[in-house]
Amino acid sequence: MSVTPGPHRAPHPGLEARYGSTACPAADALNPFIEQLLSHRSVRAYLPDPVSEAELAAIIAAAQSAASSSNLNLWSVVAVRDADTRAQLAHCAGDQVHVREAPLQLVWLADLARLRHVAAQLGRPSAGLDYTELFLTAVIDAALAAQNAAAAAESLGLGTVYIGGMRNQPEQVATLLGLPSEAFAVFGMCVGRPDPTKPAAVKPRPAQSVVLHHERYCQDPLDAGVEAYNQAMARFYEAQQMKVHGTWDVHSAKRIAGPESLSGRDRLVEALHALGFKLK
Amino acid sequence: MSVTPGPHRAPHPGLEARYGSTACPAADALNPFIEQLLSHRSVRAYLPDPVSEAELAAIIAAAQSAASSSNLNLWSVVAVRDADTRAQLAHCAGDQVHVREAPLQLVWLADLARLRHVAAQLGRPSAGLDYTELFLTAVIDAALAAQNAAAAAESLGLGTVYIGGMRNQPEQVATLLGLPSEAFAVFGMCVGRPDPTKPAAVKPRPAQSVVLHHERYCQDPLDAGVEAYNQAMARFYEAQQMKVHGTWDVHSAKRIAGPESLSGRDRLVEALHALGFKLK
Repeated sequence: MSVTPGPHRAPHPGLEARYGSTACPAADALNPFIEQLLSHRSVRAYLPDPVSEAELAAIIAAAQSAASSSNLNLWSVVAVRDADTRAQLAHCAGDQVHVREAPLQLVWLADLARLRHVAAQLGRPSAGLDYTELFLTAVIDAALAAQNAAAAAESLGLGTVYIGGMRNQPEQVATLLGLPSEAFAVFGMCVGRPDPTKPAAVKPRPAQSVVLHHERYCQDPLDAGVEAYNQAMARFYEAQQMKVHGTWDVHSAKRIAGPESLSGRDRLVEALHALGFKLK
Repeated sequence: MSVTPGPHRAPHPGLEARYGSTACPAADALNPFIEQLLSHRSVRAYLPDPVSEAELAAIIAAAQSAASSSNLNLWSVVAVRDADTRAQLAHCAGDQVHVREAPLQLVWLADLARLRHVAAQLGRPSAGLDYTELFLTAVIDAALAAQNAAAAAESLGLGTVYIGGMRNQPEQVATLLGLPSEAFAVFGMCVGRPDPTKPAAVKPRPAQSVVLHHERYCQDPLDAGVEAYNQAMARFYEAQQMKVHGTWDVHSAKRIAGPESLSGRDRLVEALHALGFKLK
């Protein structure tokens, strides 16, 4: 398709940052929109400047433009600007400083409460909501919406980082935000203007052959891919002057070693039941 | 921020399509990137033209640029171009014609198998993967990646539609795609060039007040918001000459009436156990 042969072309900076030195055939189909997506980085240092109401509205419009399963819209989001609530959420999420400091925290909810209410207002049964399938649908709906929101925020020059730590203490988060039964904070998201004195970098990912399978799942490229990724991440940590002990594979394995490595999330099912989800 | 006062400005076409006539303060913060996100529509009629390898690589690069919890990368995707496999997947997903006809089906996986293998290669324990938390993390990782992929595909002029029906018969899908234990097809995604003779429309969403809560969850705007949305959807169906029986609330309530309305997905937990997930 391209007149310039791929291997001889200068590497694309966005692809090079995302994949390290690994060759990637995507360069022939890039455009400014995709280049913006490629430039994502997780921001953990923010200026205190507020996110404007217009920016928030644009971010939410982008979120609502993501697909929703059967158009059920099984998600909600709580926008928290109040400094005291942010500090309490930060405490729930393992005392992450950026949750306290970012001017806006978006807490994304898997929300079965709304449709439960809608069905009740109609006097109609809603026993389908008792099933794990609908909980999972709500989690997916929330995630799709949130990713559009993150991408939109970044296009406005804002930084974001997902906060999975919001699942460390789900009942406390629900109490703080006044959630009804059957609403669950899937994750948080810091939003704000990145502190230019502490810039974040694009993190490399494994080569496409590690995650992309053609026709059928194939584990053959995995071991070589992990080894190459270990090296790419080691170079990244060195370039960022980050002191990370161990390679990516060891670091990742430690993260899932057992229940004690899950920051309290080993009791997620118990917490979901306490929040009213039946999970049949 | 704007020199033109908001209420007197001509409505933004992208916002108008997304919200019907509802006013939305997002217009002051739009840019071409967000306008592209706003233009999303689900495409269910495709030309047979293949998606190029460069386009697929760009789509996957965008997917890998989404955040991944603790950089564990707990997802995979299977790209299916083979017509026979597409037909079998279409059958699994409730005989959806567009799954058979779209030239590319991307099946997005929650994939704990990779990290299980990585830990085993290191001789390290991986009991954390036995917990529902890690299954949920993998589903979220897959959804974030998929949404970037969908947005990237649309920016290339391709159409997409998510296929939740891939969860109707999870074991059959796993067999078709040769999935290892602890890999689960969260959803499919048709990708291809939209058939210009059957254009898809932007579907309205509820007003932002229905999904966006400030500081704490608040159900007060819900009933009026649902009523307004019923009317917006009725106008949409009429404009699209779609014969849809009942209002959005009734239609949605029917979808979650009980296990018999879940297209087989009431047995999702059983299927996940059969696929090797412990879900502790």
